[in-house]
Amino acid sequence: MVVAYDGSGFHGFAVQPGVRTVGGALGEAMSKVVRVPVELTCAGRTDAGVHAWGQVVHVDLPEGTDLDRLHRSLLKLLGPAVVVRTVEAVDGSFDARFSARSRTYRYSVHNDPVPDPFTAHLAWHVPEALDLDLLALACDPFVGEHDFSAFCRRPKGPDDSEPASLVRRVLRAGWTDLGDGRLRFEVEATAFCHQMVRSIVGTIVAAGHGRTRAGDIRGILWSGDRAQAAPVAPPHGLCLWQVAY
Amino acid sequence: MVVAYDGSGFHGFAVQPGVRTVGGALGEAMSKVVRVPVELTCAGRTDAGVHAWGQVVHVDLPEGTDLDRLHRSLLKLLGPAVVVRTVEAVDGSFDARFSARSRTYRYSVHNDPVPDPFTAHLAWHVPEALDLDLLALACDPFVGEHDFSAFCRRPKGPDDSEPASLVRRVLRAGWTDLGDGRLRFEVEATAFCHQMVRSIVGTIVAAGHGRTRAGDIRGILWSGDRAQAAPVAPPHGLCLWQVAY
Repeated sequence: MVVAYDGSGFHGFAVQPGVRTVGGALGEAMSKVVRVPVELTCAGRTDAGVHAWGQVVHVDLPEGTDLDRLHRSLLKLLGPAVVVRTVEAVDGSFDARFSARSRTYRYSVHNDPVPDPFTAHLAWHVPEALDLDLLALACDPFVGEHDFSAFCRRPKGPDDSEPASLVRRVLRAGWTDLGDGRLRFEVEATAFCHQMVRSIVGTIVAAGHGRTRAGDIRGILWSGDRAQAAPVAPPHGLCLWQVAY
Repeated sequence: MVVAYDGSGFHGFAVQPGVRTVGGALGEAMSKVVRVPVELTCAGRTDAGVHAWGQVVHVDLPEGTDLDRLHRSLLKLLGPAVVVRTVEAVDGSFDARFSARSRTYRYSVHNDPVPDPFTAHLAWHVPEALDLDLLALACDPFVGEHDFSAFCRRPKGPDDSEPASLVRRVLRAGWTDLGDGRLRFEVEATAFCHQMVRSIVGTIVAAGHGRTRAGDIRGILWSGDRAQAAPVAPPHGLCLWQVAY
């Protein structure tokens, strides 16, 4: 399934007891239709408040399930905040998470002194003017294979466990000026670690204000020190745009 | 003041005791800043759930009020749902309502089998395919000066009062295809009566499905019979776009 959602009212994708999550809402609706409990696997576990246009979810269903009927039922059962865009049968070896070759995220910035009520929940409102050339320059250090320790929230594990690698390969990163103060950052990587896009955007936006230089960013990457990166950008500008298989 | 708002959480513009209205929120914020009660006059009293990008509001303020400071304070005091875009001093003879030469409304339709979580509160989702040629043809009967009794909710008045005229002059009406199933209706008139745009859109969309013909629409206008028009389109697709003086 390809799933779009407005993450505003959700505590992220991953099912958690007692809170409203996208995975929880989707799993509940599916179980109602197929009448067996279902377990969802998604391509990217988005955080609270983060949106998706092209989240990919797989699920094992009883043989012979009518997918068109399932799709129509899901559209009816789920509110407008979660929309199953497409449903298709896949090979048993397909895994939404592990078969993915890359993920693309978009981050929206509204750079204007005056906010916009219609996109307030979809874009980070940055009133102070950003320099587009500096934004573009600040992308370059991130492209390629790097240890992103300085730009990730390290996952908590048992004290004696080996820390997980935070080496990731960024395939491309760049900004598009959509006019009227609308700026869009798009980044594609084989995989992302936790809060990586928001951390990168926070630092690039600081560069766009002239507070950090592109050269400094290479140093921050090499340092592996999270305290040197700028604060993470807010979740509501972020959207999981597309997953490639 | 030019004011934009997401009408989703409001019971329309006009101040009403006990409910959250745009005028109520704006008036309260202004009174806090200028420290005297203020009375707002707007160009168009939008209904519950209707949005605005270019609502115009005038207010009488004490001589010497610092308008830049007022603007900044209003941006801070009001949430992202109501945004004062500009503030300027006007001549004492200016009246936001009576000085207006025309109002322009936009109505957004999302014509796609699958809904979109990001515009669900800003566009009417119409899953069944619309014929753009039929939509365009159905606009023509509305342009010009007509009695819009068949397309308006008649204002309630004292029983023995003369009914108010529902004759209005529509200057232009047309659709723009923005791609990806995004359709935008734009209509400009010297003034509108209550629910007029939503009633016109409801009938034009019925024509776009082939259920009403452009010729029938002339007949409905001439009949003055509200029962012959299609049901009104929902409020959340409507936006007061611009007011001309």
